[in-house]
Amino acid sequence: MNLKDYIADVLDFPVEGILFRDITPLLADGEAFNTVCELITSFAEEVDADVIAGPESRGFIFGCPVASNLSIGFVPIRKPNKLPREVVTQTYDLEYGTNTLCMHKDAIKPGQKVVIVDDLLATGGTLEAAVKLVESLGGVVAGIACVIELEDLKGRDALKGYNVFTILKY
Amino acid sequence: MNLKDYIADVLDFPVEGILFRDITPLLADGEAFNTVCELITSFAEEVDADVIAGPESRGFIFGCPVASNLSIGFVPIRKPNKLPREVVTQTYDLEYGTNTLCMHKDAIKPGQKVVIVDDLLATGGTLEAAVKLVESLGGVVAGIACVIELEDLKGRDALKGYNVFTILKY
Repeated sequence: MNLKDYIADVLDFPVEGILFRDITPLLADGEAFNTVCELITSFAEEVDADVIAGPESRGFIFGCPVASNLSIGFVPIRKPNKLPREVVTQTYDLEYGTNTLCMHKDAIKPGQKVVIVDDLLATGGTLEAAVKLVESLGGVVAGIACVIELEDLKGRDALKGYNVFTILKY
Repeated sequence: MNLKDYIADVLDFPVEGILFRDITPLLADGEAFNTVCELITSFAEEVDADVIAGPESRGFIFGCPVASNLSIGFVPIRKPNKLPREVVTQTYDLEYGTNTLCMHKDAIKPGQKVVIVDDLLATGGTLEAAVKLVESLGGVVAGIACVIELEDLKGRDALKGYNVFTILKY
């Protein structure tokens, strides 16, 4: 099974000039989706994860099956005004403007080994913000797992010193 | 295990007067989260689901582990401008204003048995829109599963004739 066969290339989305890697055909195929979830589950098991964290909303798609497979907790990292209790926040730069991510203050216990899961490693901005949120609560980032890596965007440079696992490299 | 012990009641969120049922403590507990995923998985298996569909973003949290458990596909139902290819859309009324949900046009094959998964059955507006999207593509809604049901809001009235499964009733 070549997992790249299940990624659709969509030109000019969300803006002109961008080649968007669409994961929905992969999700639609039970075997392909489950294969990806199992690969990330094995990674999270190897690094002895206590908890999985994932950014809204595609991080939920892969992070939640991994947490469920390992019977460990899942921490949603969300946009502002979505989490109902006290949060920590991180704001980071996008090409135009900024983005902010939030995590409940009691989401991670000090010393917990956290694996952060998302669909895409591009510039690494989202994942770097997620790392800062986890560490601000005393969590230890045991690993970062993404389905797709856009190597030209050098996201690994933003995540130096961390154990980064990606499945499909472009 | 009393699963309601893992739901935090947060008063006045997102607006004054609302008692918000916060699922994040349930997600944080591996055993509780997995128990809920297993219950929905059993329901989806009983109704012989070919595919799971879930609305952004909390529907992803429970729907994706269920799809992965059964090695069947997952269809994300998303807000406008998130899905990169051609979509079908449904707009429905909220207390103030409207909301729109989208699904890729090729997401469901005619005759496929679909189970729709979300965290919450409140007035049923979101789930009713999800049903319409599935049926507009020729899918058969084999069941609807939610973690929490707010019985006073009579969401089941909006979903008459469908097999609705909920776990925690308030």
